[in-house]
Amino acid sequence: MLIIGELINTSRKAVKPAVEQRDAAFIQELAKKQVEAGAHYVDVNCGTMVHDEVETMEWLVNTIQEAVTAPLCIDTPRMEAMEAGLAACKNGQPMVNSITAEKERYSMVLPLVLKYKAKVVALCMDDTGVPASAEQRITIVKKLVGDLTSAGVPEEDIYLDPLVTPISTGDNCGNDVLDTVRFIRQTYPKVHGACGLSNISYGLPNRKILNQAFMIQTMVAGMDAYILDPLDKAMMGFVYASQALLGQDSFCMQYLNAHRSGLYE
Amino acid sequence: MLIIGELINTSRKAVKPAVEQRDAAFIQELAKKQVEAGAHYVDVNCGTMVHDEVETMEWLVNTIQEAVTAPLCIDTPRMEAMEAGLAACKNGQPMVNSITAEKERYSMVLPLVLKYKAKVVALCMDDTGVPASAEQRITIVKKLVGDLTSAGVPEEDIYLDPLVTPISTGDNCGNDVLDTVRFIRQTYPKVHGACGLSNISYGLPNRKILNQAFMIQTMVAGMDAYILDPLDKAMMGFVYASQALLGQDSFCMQYLNAHRSGLYE
Repeated sequence: MLIIGELINTSRKAVKPAVEQRDAAFIQELAKKQVEAGAHYVDVNCGTMVHDEVETMEWLVNTIQEAVTAPLCIDTPRMEAMEAGLAACKNGQPMVNSITAEKERYSMVLPLVLKYKAKVVALCMDDTGVPASAEQRITIVKKLVGDLTSAGVPEEDIYLDPLVTPISTGDNCGNDVLDTVRFIRQTYPKVHGACGLSNISYGLPNRKILNQAFMIQTMVAGMDAYILDPLDKAMMGFVYASQALLGQDSFCMQYLNAHRSGLYE
Repeated sequence: MLIIGELINTSRKAVKPAVEQRDAAFIQELAKKQVEAGAHYVDVNCGTMVHDEVETMEWLVNTIQEAVTAPLCIDTPRMEAMEAGLAACKNGQPMVNSITAEKERYSMVLPLVLKYKAKVVALCMDDTGVPASAEQRITIVKKLVGDLTSAGVPEEDIYLDPLVTPISTGDNCGNDVLDTVRFIRQTYPKVHGACGLSNISYGLPNRKILNQAFMIQTMVAGMDAYILDPLDKAMMGFVYASQALLGQDSFCMQYLNAHRSGLYE
């Protein structure tokens, strides 16, 4: 299981002013808290800083690395910011968020993945847009895995994101993701599955329980990486519970340790 | 999805004195509340009343049926009490809880299932005791489905309970149940899977989240009936959320209606 802590994102109200004011203490505290709560990677997203994203990304990466030894996930659609972020990464193997099967984006992101020997989140979409079924996703999965591995990216560095669409827009949106993850797990045992969780519940009430249930469901299908808020104790409780129930936690030790250290309630 | 409300059970502190005192209003209220909260069947278990289980079962069945039109699940290992309960059932098709592959129990329960055309919970255990693996469970599943259908019980009236054992006693206890349910779903599409949830978390802290997560996991594998407390709003919220996410709830209508009527929080 790989948890990517999502909180350092300038689209979040509390983070934006801290980043604008270069409040290193705030950012470092947020990085530390996420790692202490179980994040293996710290996501860095300053996509809202359109005028100085490159400088901001560099500052964020350097600032976070002064506080934690966890590796970073460089999360941006802009190549200059991605390269600046990756170049500044010193904490182990960085992660790129994200490549897709869109021709232009693929051709721009791939060289960075290779140059920095990065793990990479690969979104299941291509130039025809968001896939409308599991079948379309699986076609893109095959293309992405084939192309990335041919280019020299090891299977174990690939994190396929099936692209979660809201269940409020179609009854089969959840099953499409589950079927795609089952295909990945069966066909490419070393390739990982990754996703965020909040899209699934868009437009519905009580989003928290839909997000939690969907995390548990996708884990059963074989998903093994999530971009989430590790400070959400209820969600982390379900992560540890699911792991234990799926036999991924010898003698429930992680579940019990997390319980003892108050990581979830 | 079939919910069997488990609250009318004399092993529960509040229920025992009410039953001893023949407090019809209390029992009827408990039956009504469960049905209003989403129970399709009302479980009736007075197994602790060893001296007058037969009379108590009859009284309970008659009392409950004055209050609700939902059918009952007659839950006892004692044949006299089971027959008395079934004989008194007037609310639609009754359910027997439970038959097993143990020779003596099977031969005693089967005639009652046939006589009363009842649905039947079939526990995956035989005379060698509790199965230690998915393989052993699947062997018993095949025997139970083969024997019951040969005897004339329709596949759709069979609810196989894979026998949930605590994850604290073995890392694979959860997977054994999931693998058994997947086998049932693939091999006998019309046969149902049923279980209680509290055994899985025995011996561990924070049992609630393990029970909730296990309900969600088993639904992904194909389980479609649970014996649970329908007044547990958190659990029922996850039932509705899981259904919606698995595409079993057109336009999320049940999820939305349950939300609007405050059935879960």
